[in-house]
Formats: sequence, structure tokens, C-alpha cells
Amino acid sequence: MEIEQSENDLFKETLSKVRHDINQGLYPPNEKLHPLYELATIYQVSRTIMEAVVDQLVEENRVTRRLGIGVFVNPKPIYSSGIEELGSVSEMIRRAGKVPGTQYVAAEVVEPTANDQANFNTLAIKSIARIERVRTADGDPVVYCIDKVDNDLVPIGQIHSQNSIFKLIEEFTNKHIQYAHTAIEPIGFHEKISAILNCRPDQPLLLLRQMHYTADNQPILYSANYFRHDVFQFHVVRKRM
Amino acid sequence: MEIEQSENDLFKETLSKVRHDINQGLYPPNEKLHPLYELATIYQVSRTIMEAVVDQLVEENRVTRRLGIGVFVNPKPIYSSGIEELGSVSEMIRRAGKVPGTQYVAAEVVEPTANDQANFNTLAIKSIARIERVRTADGDPVVYCIDKVDNDLVPIGQIHSQNSIFKLIEEFTNKHIQYAHTAIEPIGFHEKISAILNCRPDQPLLLLRQMHYTADNQPILYSANYFRHDVFQFHVVRKRM
Repeated sequence: MEIEQSENDLFKETLSKVRHDINQGLYPPNEKLHPLYELATIYQVSRTIMEAVVDQLVEENRVTRRLGIGVFVNPKPIYSSGIEELGSVSEMIRRAGKVPGTQYVAAEVVEPTANDQANFNTLAIKSIARIERVRTADGDPVVYCIDKVDNDLVPIGQIHSQNSIFKLIEEFTNKHIQYAHTAIEPIGFHEKISAILNCRPDQPLLLLRQMHYTADNQPILYSANYFRHDVFQFHVVRKRM
Repeated sequence: MEIEQSENDLFKETLSKVRHDINQGLYPPNEKLHPLYELATIYQVSRTIMEAVVDQLVEENRVTRRLGIGVFVNPKPIYSSGIEELGSVSEMIRRAGKVPGTQYVAAEVVEPTANDQANFNTLAIKSIARIERVRTADGDPVVYCIDKVDNDLVPIGQIHSQNSIFKLIEEFTNKHIQYAHTAIEPIGFHEKISAILNCRPDQPLLLLRQMHYTADNQPILYSANYFRHDVFQFHVVRKRM
């Protein structure tokens, strides 16, 4: 933004008007804004100021600039939480005031790989129940989940009966899932999963790969959760080391 | 992965061989692996098993499958840390045993926007020093940083003299940066920044937007840091809410 100081009041005023108009639904989520010259005419400012306003809205994550296509209004996230708080995906969706749902993509019993043995910290697991599901909020696909659990602990046949694998594990084992070790990973575009979650090619996902533990430090559930970033936003308080 | 149970030992053996060969540098970072049929010949297994091995390596983040191009070896991250630990970018690079460097992209004094006023929680800031820099590790570009600080607190002219804005702020204000409120955001591809960081179009970035505070809760520094995910990996312990 490089506008004259004298124009700054006009910039702020216009920014506040456009923000207000977005909030009021004049420009609905996922809709394209008018081209810059039209916006400048509508808000009666120069194109330079209008461009600075749009720059600022991009920085605030209110709109997304799609190269050669236009500027689009971002939907409001339905869920925002501290990343250090562990909840099941169902819990997260329910907290956002939406109804969680599940579409099963695949459920199979597989041999544990070397990686599974390392994650579960045992060679004793004979078979792994591996479940792929799309989680929905009020019917919209919002998270893609790959879960792995010891098949002797929670038989795979039971999983269809229950939305929440957390609940199921807790019912079958009488143990509470207490914490998870989680790797945070940006995903630009996932050939299969982005399409299932109705993402455009330029819509990134946040992948949380997590190993869940019980209160007595038993590794019990591995999950890879792909979150639509426009729906789930995570934050954290970082403390100086 | 859907291979016969009887083939599982062969799968594990091959996986461990390929992992070993990657670690030994037989397939260097960023290099393309041989096509599947060649790999199957080299490791003397069926294509089905070889495909399961590659799937597993993709899941472990050791390799990346680039659609229609091939499978590439991921470089080892130079830095892995708990996301709740706040360090300056210089500190992070130094901890990884590398020498931090800086390339200045832009430095300007601007009027605070409404967003800046909200972030710094004051209308009293007259001008903002806004700095864009590429941070390097042993000369390689690894993080893109946009920093904003009250220009009356730390004059922009001083910033060129010091790699670390943390240090500079602490010298000028006699206050210690103690914690930051941080939003975690995946970035698929950033028109300008991905190119500057030498990223391929399919290499995502992790953006941390953070407001830094002093021990007495004064907002003092705003930063947007774009991290190359293959270089910086963050994790977190999530506790059940």
C-alpha cells in the first residue's frame, strides 16, 4: 500500500464500507467482487485507493485474489480454536453449532506397517482397522479423516454404528483419550481429497497427523485429518523459549 | 495399500531398503525416483508391492508424488519444533546449526491501517515501519517475513543494521518479547513469495501471522512469516478439552 497520507482517511472510510458490505451479505461468500474499476466507481474513490483497500482485505483474509480470475469473498470460518485443544472432529463441528455427519469412503483391516508399529510403539498389534471418512457439517464436507486403530481393540464392524471414533474407543476400552502428538502440515492441493472436500485448486488444506494417547500414555489412535482451512481455523499462543 | 498378507513381509523389507537408500543419499533430496516399473525391477518385487512402498513413503512424507511428473525425494527438514515455542527466525535457524542471513525486499514507513490499529490495540501510533525480508539459512531462502512495528519505537533506519528485529526492539525499548498470538494458515501457492523462496508450484507454505507482546502485555511487533514447509516443521501436543 503506497498511497498519499492525505488519502488515508478516504482509504480507511472505504475499507470500513466494503467490510460492512461484505458482512451484510452484499457480496456473499465465494462470490466474485466487481472488477477494480467498477468498485472504484461504486465507492467513488480512485483506483489506487480501491486497490489498497482490496490489498488490505486480502491481508485480513476476508477476500482471496485468484490470479487472472478475480477477487473472491472468503466464507467465515465456522470453527476457530487453539490448536493445543484436542477435540474429536464431531465435537469441533458440534461446538460450531453445526450437525456433524459422516460419509464412509473405505474401511479395511490391514497388516500394520513398520510406520504403524513405530506410531503405536509395539510389535504386538496383529491387524489395524483403517477407516477413511468424510466428515460433514450440516451436510457440507469439511474434514477428510484417515483413522487407524488396533482391530483387536475396536472391531472395524462397530465403526459404522458410531460417528465418533473417540467415543467408540472409549466405550470399548474404558479408557479416555487424553492428548495427541500432532504434526502440522500445509497441503497445497491433494489430488483426491481436495476434490472430495469441494476445494478449488487454489484452496489449501491443513493436515494434522496425530497420534492419540490415553491418560496412562498408551498410544491408541492414529489420525490424519485434512481440514478445509476456510472452515476450520487454528491459532496458538507461542511463548518465548 | 491392499496387498496380500503373505506379501507383507516383502513389503516391509522393501520399504526398509528404500528408506535406507534414501537416507544413504542414493536418491538425493529433490531428485526424481525411477519410474515404478524400474524400481520394481531394482528391488525385485511386484509393481503392486512397489506401489504400496511408495504410498507408504508418501504417507511418511519422505517423498512427494507430483501428478503426471513423478515421485520426488523430500529434503530433510532443518528445523522441527513445538509450535508453542516462540523464537525469532534467526534463533530458529541458528538452532538448526545454520547461519541466518537476510535479504531486504522492502522497507517503508506507512500510516497505520484500521487493522494495524486493532492489532496494536491503540489509535496512538502515528506511523508504522513495515519491513519485508527474505531470511536465509546458509544462504538458502527459507522464510519470507513481513514485520510491522511502531516507527517511533524503532526507527526504520536502524533495521538494516541488525538481522534480528526481536533484538533491535529489545535494545531500543528495554522490553523483552514474551509471547505471541498466532494464527496458523496453510498457503498453497503465493504468486510472489513462493517464487522468491524457490518453491515449486506444488510446494505449500505455512503462514504464521503473529502479534508479539511484551511481558507486560504490550503489543509490540506484528509479523507474517511464510515458512518453507520442507525446511521448518512444527508440531504440537494437543490436550483434550
